[in-house]
Amino acid sequence: MISFESDYIAGAHPEVLRKLTETNLEPLPGYGSDPYCESAKRKIREAVGLPDAGIFFLIGGTQANAVVISTLLADHEGVIAAKTGHISSHEAGAIEYAGHKVLELPQAEGKIVSEALEKYLADYYADENHEHMVCPGMVYLSHPTEYGTLYSRAELSRIAEICGKYRLSLFLDGARLAYALTSRETDLALPEIAALCDVFYIGGTKVGALCGEAVVFTKGNMPKHFLTSVKKRGALLAKGRLLGVQFDALFTDSLYFRIGRHAIEMAEKMKEIFRAHGLPFYIQSPTNQQFVVLENGQMEHLAKKVAFSFWEKANDAHTVVRFATGWSTTEEDLRALDAALKEE
Amino acid sequence: MISFESDYIAGAHPEVLRKLTETNLEPLPGYGSDPYCESAKRKIREAVGLPDAGIFFLIGGTQANAVVISTLLADHEGVIAAKTGHISSHEAGAIEYAGHKVLELPQAEGKIVSEALEKYLADYYADENHEHMVCPGMVYLSHPTEYGTLYSRAELSRIAEICGKYRLSLFLDGARLAYALTSRETDLALPEIAALCDVFYIGGTKVGALCGEAVVFTKGNMPKHFLTSVKKRGALLAKGRLLGVQFDALFTDSLYFRIGRHAIEMAEKMKEIFRAHGLPFYIQSPTNQQFVVLENGQMEHLAKKVAFSFWEKANDAHTVVRFATGWSTTEEDLRALDAALKEE
Amino acid sequence: MISFESDYIAGAHPEVLRKLTETNLEPLPGYGSDPYCESAKRKIREAVGLPDAGIFFLIGGTQANAVVISTLLADHEGVIAAKTGHISSHEAGAIEYAGHKVLELPQAEGKIVSEALEKYLADYYADENHEHMVCPGMVYLSHPTEYGTLYSRAELSRIAEICGKYRLSLFLDGARLAYALTSRETDLALPEIAALCDVFYIGGTKVGALCGEAVVFTKGNMPKHFLTSVKKRGALLAKGRLLGVQFDALFTDSLYFRIGRHAIEMAEKMKEIFRAHGLPFYIQSPTNQQFVVLENGQMEHLAKKVAFSFWEKANDAHTVVRFATGWSTTEEDLRALDAALKEE
Amino acid sequence: MISFESDYIAGAHPEVLRKLTETNLEPLPGYGSDPYCESAKRKIREAVGLPDAGIFFLIGGTQANAVVISTLLADHEGVIAAKTGHISSHEAGAIEYAGHKVLELPQAEGKIVSEALEKYLADYYADENHEHMVCPGMVYLSHPTEYGTLYSRAELSRIAEICGKYRLSLFLDGARLAYALTSRETDLALPEIAALCDVFYIGGTKVGALCGEAVVFTKGNMPKHFLTSVKKRGALLAKGRLLGVQFDALFTDSLYFRIGRHAIEMAEKMKEIFRAHGLPFYIQSPTNQQFVVLENGQMEHLAKKVAFSFWEKANDAHTVVRFATGWSTTEEDLRALDAALKEE
Repeated sequence: MISFESDYIAGAHPEVLRKLTETNLEPLPGYGSDPYCESAKRKIREAVGLPDAGIFFLIGGTQANAVVISTLLADHEGVIAAKTGHISSHEAGAIEYAGHKVLELPQAEGKIVSEALEKYLADYYADENHEHMVCPGMVYLSHPTEYGTLYSRAELSRIAEICGKYRLSLFLDGARLAYALTSRETDLALPEIAALCDVFYIGGTKVGALCGEAVVFTKGNMPKHFLTSVKKRGALLAKGRLLGVQFDALFTDSLYFRIGRHAIEMAEKMKEIFRAHGLPFYIQSPTNQQFVVLENGQMEHLAKKVAFSFWEKANDAHTVVRFATGWSTTEEDLRALDAALKEE
Repeated sequence: MISFESDYIAGAHPEVLRKLTETNLEPLPGYGSDPYCESAKRKIREAVGLPDAGIFFLIGGTQANAVVISTLLADHEGVIAAKTGHISSHEAGAIEYAGHKVLELPQAEGKIVSEALEKYLADYYADENHEHMVCPGMVYLSHPTEYGTLYSRAELSRIAEICGKYRLSLFLDGARLAYALTSRETDLALPEIAALCDVFYIGGTKVGALCGEAVVFTKGNMPKHFLTSVKKRGALLAKGRLLGVQFDALFTDSLYFRIGRHAIEMAEKMKEIFRAHGLPFYIQSPTNQQFVVLENGQMEHLAKKVAFSFWEKANDAHTVVRFATGWSTTEEDLRALDAALKEE
Repeated sequence: MISFESDYIAGAHPEVLRKLTETNLEPLPGYGSDPYCESAKRKIREAVGLPDAGIFFLIGGTQANAVVISTLLADHEGVIAAKTGHISSHEAGAIEYAGHKVLELPQAEGKIVSEALEKYLADYYADENHEHMVCPGMVYLSHPTEYGTLYSRAELSRIAEICGKYRLSLFLDGARLAYALTSRETDLALPEIAALCDVFYIGGTKVGALCGEAVVFTKGNMPKHFLTSVKKRGALLAKGRLLGVQFDALFTDSLYFRIGRHAIEMAEKMKEIFRAHGLPFYIQSPTNQQFVVLENGQMEHLAKKVAFSFWEKANDAHTVVRFATGWSTTEEDLRALDAALKEE
Repeated sequence: MISFESDYIAGAHPEVLRKLTETNLEPLPGYGSDPYCESAKRKIREAVGLPDAGIFFLIGGTQANAVVISTLLADHEGVIAAKTGHISSHEAGAIEYAGHKVLELPQAEGKIVSEALEKYLADYYADENHEHMVCPGMVYLSHPTEYGTLYSRAELSRIAEICGKYRLSLFLDGARLAYALTSRETDLALPEIAALCDVFYIGGTKVGALCGEAVVFTKGNMPKHFLTSVKKRGALLAKGRLLGVQFDALFTDSLYFRIGRHAIEMAEKMKEIFRAHGLPFYIQSPTNQQFVVLENGQMEHLAKKVAFSFWEKANDAHTVVRFATGWSTTEEDLRALDAALKEE
């Protein structure tokens, strides 16, 4: 069945798989000390424009969030996130498992609003009892957000400024970063993101890898003995080559960006199909995830032909659903979607 | 200076102190195995109307919340609380330190609203991805709330019913329980609370003890090996007698209720004084904490004569402040407050 | 350079890689709900002889240990392990990170001795203060051990019996299980291990997979909501197919056992080479890891030609080193080792 | 019954209780911000000879150990302790609950041996895989030890030197510190201990207080925002006065030392009684805990007249038991013990 269920429905991008195959027989040392990890780090440092960035490859997004947040926060600190942020809502309490509170802010289209952030921080420090409260130590945001939306350069800069003023780290979850960087509506390039954030990660799992997220510490702030802390959290991969080789491929010949552009192109065409069929968008998303509102009968009918994701109930008769594109989405998939919508 | 700063400004109620003094020289075994702990438990079981209730004495409120919640929740569960609940806002992340998320609900006058609770639970189970989310395993509420308000019998019953339907434990934080039980506006007696909740505690620290909270497990649900879990959390008192003797005193000759009634009487008279001076109440509280709105100049002036607590900014010119009564509040204190308000 | 550094120096076994390649383009649902995970589980259930075994695929060994131990232990319990056990010594405190103590027993050739285990348990329960101590709730052992040694059927049965008597779970770390099952000196088959243990895992990372360990709960004892607990620990793989496909390949046409037998054959030949060169064995290992004692000069000389692992200092002049074989070890590698030893 | 069961069988020393009574009615701010806490800190700073020492009052020993260790250790670090150390054996895994491993060293008479410590550290750093192991970040020792023994000045200095060399904090558990400082055999005064250790605590619970331990950070090393971290661990006492007033009393007119000297004098006389009755000592203890070996029949007989503590089985026919003296032990108690021994 044609599937738009997520951006991780397929295996590895062929160029990634090829490199895994080519290097498969080489004997290599473990735990990330192999030359492919080194090569991948070099290429990423160049792409982000920071020759001294600290880079560490982790396996998945929830793991990356928990490892980064729990090793950068001080004991008395928590992390601010939008209420719809992945760490707030869909990581089964992984941050709390690591002993830290997620301080939830209301959101607008999945994004933290800088005014609300600043008010929160000002109120915290104005409160005479703030020593009894969790101290905000970091801002977490996802880009694209869980709703496919993007921060503008002005928005991210303003948040970074507030973080600077209140001495918070700024952490950007880039599980789908490729789709932000190649969106037609973004004004934020990778080096700008790297310059504004204290730490972020370049998602591989949802951008053509079998698994893997490249965490980038931009300011000499990778925790000392980070490898031990990663091991302590069960997050150190024995065959680190699996991550190194994949990111080496993703950052060779701009594959990471080519995947992003392809998915964006497919998403833009998909939006035209939805518009042609008169389907309302739940939110205006300029990236690879599209949220539309379906009448429930229509949804059930369509689900027989095409796979997509339930998002949330809109009302008793309608449902918000998500369609995602990725490296493996084809024009043929789109034609099949169009046809399925026509049939109804 | 006259102080209404909190209900824990003074030491122990004289009857509590007397009993500590009288028993001081007796050699007693440690860790809660002494006869005073046993006697106190017997008296509490009688007062709550549950001959088989499991009772354990802990030292303070945050500790009691963290110990109870983290030992009763399953690994994958979190605890629902009002956003203004003590565990959400003023315990420095103690629940998260124990590895569990506080699932925050909006509140009304400090209380959880049953409709919002039921919607939250229904939405959770309707979500196809709920296995990626923290499973609600308990409802935490405080009675009186952090704003001095009270649940009615109907409200608490409805919440208990919802908890039963979705198989959540119901946990009532009774740090100030005496002031709920003796409020002129309550329709909930101690045995009713005990019957409705799975676990609750009878606060001593804020009701005449030097320290101590009596946790009551109402349904044979005290975790096995609870003493070891308490010890593991650094919460087991070597001289357990300190807690046993105090609770034995508090539940002798209804002292716990006498303290409550006195504080309520003082609070009602204080309310009349505020009304007489035309001070607006921030919230209608039927218990020992009263929240009034002061103009900032007035607040600073008054603060020179009388101690009270900053609560939150009302607007640029006004502030919400709290006045609390307790066992040691006297008519003379109230006259001094009245006088101080007149002088302005 | 020829490498005997570990059993995870190469990528995937060709049959594993082929299956990954063949299935790469199929759109599949995430998080382990794909048909390859199902197929792999069916095959494993058959291989272990337990049609109802609960099976969950995790990514690596430390992660598997931490997830299993922390979800099966009760709050007040710890896990017993040999002092040389992987969880005691080389996992950076991952079990403690999850809040549980590793109760270390002395070891003999890397193994727990049943007499010492029983004495430990008897002493614990005889101690009047044992409620102040960590309660032993599980026995962890590795098979093969960190020293390549094996438990006999009698030894494992005796340990299982003691666990039964004191109501402890028995957990077997099978990171290198293939090399135990195919050792010439073992009398323990896979179904026997499954019958004796409460939980164990079948290691993939060190037996031809890129990553992956198949955790087997043998007695209907997989924790409820285990997926949520796995997610909470950052251990849930989005593209669960990566694990399912690999284990499906490993349990097709007995590949897992063929890999084991090959590595054992290579190890036996390697032992003959060491014997021929008069090198003393540090320990008698019947599996794929061989520990020999080298004079330090000899060690440095050899290290220029052949990669191996430092293990520990034997004395000022000698060092214990480890040579491991695996699926990728060849007769040619062994000849090169022989030649390198001759040259000295 | 006459009791030598522990040094916390009685309530507060009369001078402590008197001060609690005298100050009972004063309205005071909470959480340790009252003038008695300040006064007690001043007196302790003077007694330890460090005008800038950071001091924080906690409630009990296990709590103090867990709070101090978990806030001073870095994420990747663990704490070294003797296998018989309180944190290793009798705190129900409180350190592990806080996420850190206790690295157990063999002990001699309850003490860490500096040679073993240095070897452990040298081996750790020599191990090529030490990044996969828990990094030793602190040495914990108790003084007196759990066996009543004492470190000499030379021993403690040597351990401090090793800690300095390997950059570990040195933490001394002084739950019974008074009995070390006043032992006839010690050559370590309080200011010397303060100068050698990075952090230690002055135990109150076992030296005449109802509860309370005064943690002393000697080198400007109290963690920033320590109050929040304490609160997060449920260890912040609302009526902080309870601790401040008691320590103020303990450090007025040298009460802490008077209590120590009295208990030591009683212990020395008790030793003479044991010697006179020909009872073998399990260990030579120069402090208030005495360990003797009783024949089991004798033990049971004696237990009918005098309370003492079971320690461990010596062999099938004999048991090690503990007798402790404290502020409330009297000459009459000793005569009763003597008489009870004679009767047998």
